[in-house]
Amino acid sequence: MNNTKLHTATTRKSVVALCGGVGGAKLAMGLNAILGSELTLIVNTGDDFEHLGLYISPDIDSVLYAIAGINDMSRGWGRSQETWAFMESLKELGGETWFQIGDKDLALHIERTRRMRSGEKLSRITTDLSKKLGINCSILPMTDDSVATFIQTNEGLLPFQKYFVMRKCEPISCGIEFRGAESANPLDTAISALSDPHLEAIIICPSNPYLSIDPILSMPLYRDALLNSTAPIVVVSPIIGGKTIKGPADKLMVEMGLQPSSIEIYKHYQSFNIGMVIDNIDSVLKKFIDAPILCTNSVMTSLKDSIRLAEECLSFARYACSEPITHR
Amino acid sequence: MNNTKLHTATTRKSVVALCGGVGGAKLAMGLNAILGSELTLIVNTGDDFEHLGLYISPDIDSVLYAIAGINDMSRGWGRSQETWAFMESLKELGGETWFQIGDKDLALHIERTRRMRSGEKLSRITTDLSKKLGINCSILPMTDDSVATFIQTNEGLLPFQKYFVMRKCEPISCGIEFRGAESANPLDTAISALSDPHLEAIIICPSNPYLSIDPILSMPLYRDALLNSTAPIVVVSPIIGGKTIKGPADKLMVEMGLQPSSIEIYKHYQSFNIGMVIDNIDSVLKKFIDAPILCTNSVMTSLKDSIRLAEECLSFARYACSEPITHR
Repeated sequence: MNNTKLHTATTRKSVVALCGGVGGAKLAMGLNAILGSELTLIVNTGDDFEHLGLYISPDIDSVLYAIAGINDMSRGWGRSQETWAFMESLKELGGETWFQIGDKDLALHIERTRRMRSGEKLSRITTDLSKKLGINCSILPMTDDSVATFIQTNEGLLPFQKYFVMRKCEPISCGIEFRGAESANPLDTAISALSDPHLEAIIICPSNPYLSIDPILSMPLYRDALLNSTAPIVVVSPIIGGKTIKGPADKLMVEMGLQPSSIEIYKHYQSFNIGMVIDNIDSVLKKFIDAPILCTNSVMTSLKDSIRLAEECLSFARYACSEPITHR
Repeated sequence: MNNTKLHTATTRKSVVALCGGVGGAKLAMGLNAILGSELTLIVNTGDDFEHLGLYISPDIDSVLYAIAGINDMSRGWGRSQETWAFMESLKELGGETWFQIGDKDLALHIERTRRMRSGEKLSRITTDLSKKLGINCSILPMTDDSVATFIQTNEGLLPFQKYFVMRKCEPISCGIEFRGAESANPLDTAISALSDPHLEAIIICPSNPYLSIDPILSMPLYRDALLNSTAPIVVVSPIIGGKTIKGPADKLMVEMGLQPSSIEIYKHYQSFNIGMVIDNIDSVLKKFIDAPILCTNSVMTSLKDSIRLAEECLSFARYACSEPITHR
């Protein structure tokens, strides 16, 4: 965090954020509200899978819906004012119903699957769908190649959605694999955004580090881009008071022998030149974190919260690098 | 109609009906209500097409929904109490919306497409879906092979659904092709049903002869089975007072230089040993039809109507062959 450049108002600034689904998408909403077309989101696709013959990209979908303002905030996934006639009829016909797909949500899966089968790339389709949904920022899948997250568990090796949705994260994990990550090509536009000389900050959203951000960072060119970045990297910890708001990050940490706290999140990312954003509730942890720290309210329950936290992250990236707001 | 066998109550009787979608499905509902597992329906698949990456079989669907009692009687296609959230969302995303698919209806297309992509045959899937929907009769696609109906028009050669749904049958037709029909294999179970020694009747439902029944009869083994049948063949005319209840049969007839009347329907099928069922309104046409004739109310607006007409058709098949109810 010591190479930050302050840009004048006339310079075209840009920000890149790495994110997964729900938790990450909340901060992405705030960043988008502030930055619009200056924001590039690089989104995990390790959770993508084929189900019912449809290509489903859960994190891309969560981000698209959140940024378009059509996400269901209380459920945490899928679309608002959703209906379920399709699922009910599928059940009557004996189809697989463990993965819930709403009637509105289905339109995205069907349209994307149709285009992918005709040879179009996920990135191109995502860009087009973003435009149709009135989105100004760039939402980029981390790759157009296949990368698949698998969880090693006491019930054997489980594909991500089997672990996450079908088995509700109940099996005890002992390892995570990102098949294809080593050889997958990152998007050129994503690498360009990360090496943009006007890049103001890289934000690592409060997504699951092990399941949502690691798939991105397990691709060597992304890892190198972050290692070589001259822009500050702001990590927003997904652990608040020893727990996650949603998702299995805390449970996974315990199973990996790690104490669920922002200290371990810091350690996870410390090879990069980071600043940490942690919740006020965890301010006591500051002395264990050897990086610039912003203590704030990091719980987001509304768009207003998301915008406030996004503003604080951007401000932290701009100014905290030379003069850390709080530091050990 | 002169080889009919009368069976005793102890003999297992069977009836085969040939049908397309809407109009044919109405009579099929009545036949099913009377015959249950004694009924085999051979259904046109010439209208089948791939749309939005889904394998859609409109006539099979209409028959499944009608027999299961979940069809929309007023709309004439699709499911009752249908919702349209999927289509509305697809429109937002810029997807193709000229072919309407309801949220409930979608479950059938997605489940069937998934199974077909995994290598299962349409006939097997249709049988399974029938069971799931509580259907006792056998609903058989005319073939598991590809047969595609094309319409030659003043706007060029149009695939069936482009002509029928997208262009609303507006182009002027000058010919119809059933691509693949000559080489397609009929279902063994369908041919067996047609040559069953206990077959009591073959009913040609009031479907469009040119678009819904001809695809079946353009497959040589079906044509031969009907030519060689010892069971009476009962044709229910879809033309009532010079018009069809629904669909373009009357318009097509005019474009083919034929007067839309039950006389032309008779001529169309006269190479078979048929009996004709025409509407009371057309009783004046009897003298132009050289076959046993049943004049009755052939308009079906309720299940009760369908059952009454089905009973009359079966009775006509049983008794009219030796003693025609009405004959020239």
